[in-house]
Amino acid sequence: MKRAPKLASLAVPRGGASVASGGRAPLTWLDAVQWDRDGLVPVIAQEVGSNDVLMFAHMNREALQRTAATGRAVYWSRSRQKLWEKGEESGHVQQVHEIRMDCDNDVLLLKVTQLGHEPGIACHTGRHSCFFQRQEGDAWRSVEPVLKDPKAIYK
Amino acid sequence: MKRAPKLASLAVPRGGASVASGGRAPLTWLDAVQWDRDGLVPVIAQEVGSNDVLMFAHMNREALQRTAATGRAVYWSRSRQKLWEKGEESGHVQQVHEIRMDCDNDVLLLKVTQLGHEPGIACHTGRHSCFFQRQEGDAWRSVEPVLKDPKAIYK
Repeated sequence: MKRAPKLASLAVPRGGASVASGGRAPLTWLDAVQWDRDGLVPVIAQEVGSNDVLMFAHMNREALQRTAATGRAVYWSRSRQKLWEKGEESGHVQQVHEIRMDCDNDVLLLKVTQLGHEPGIACHTGRHSCFFQRQEGDAWRSVEPVLKDPKAIYK
Repeated sequence: MKRAPKLASLAVPRGGASVASGGRAPLTWLDAVQWDRDGLVPVIAQEVGSNDVLMFAHMNREALQRTAATGRAVYWSRSRQKLWEKGEESGHVQQVHEIRMDCDNDVLLLKVTQLGHEPGIACHTGRHSCFFQRQEGDAWRSVEPVLKDPKAIYK
């Protein structure tokens, strides 16, 4: 989002991989991510087809690596301080089609199919998307229907 | 994104406004936002029509208030530590149609029309969207065209 063009540095891992680097693992696409002070990166999940923004979460390095390896979204839960396989309790798994990164290498965008219910439920409130509150004057109003009772999702 | 349902607290400002509260300003929709430790909230900008995710930024309270009042996106620039009227230099202003908030009240989603160029340019690299890098195996590849040379955008 910053305005000064920094094109030369885009998508280039910092430093270089070397066999003679003292046993350090080779740098990969994971090293190009600008992890924040907590070792996390913000992630937006967007539904393939509708292009709806479903949710926002974070990943650490292991979560991103596992997401890419398995094709299923794995996040880092900041509240529980552990890896969170999306859908591990609800069954509302996210199939990942693409992983995108922004111009500053510090935000990711997943293109996903929201599995486990039709239509897809990404939100713990039982709604399609977490972004169901709309500002109307001096209030926030819920404008998206609950597709499934959360009590039936998390037994 | 958290799984424990907390529906009762959604969209309800903390505390209550009172004329007898010692001159404190009445609580508003702005008070319902869970501002982070830096007084900021992450914001996703999504294009009306295409539903493309254009960019990701932050707002402080004043930025959000001004965005709602003017119908133009105003962010908080963390690198410059000041309010940033989107398009103030580039002319790539964002007209805001809707402001959405997520289930935890800690992320916003703007529905915008990206003005100033056709097709819209949200990214400082001259691209439509900031999310133009796609993970392909062990690399990130730029997969979206530059619509306008950044040197011609930022003179």
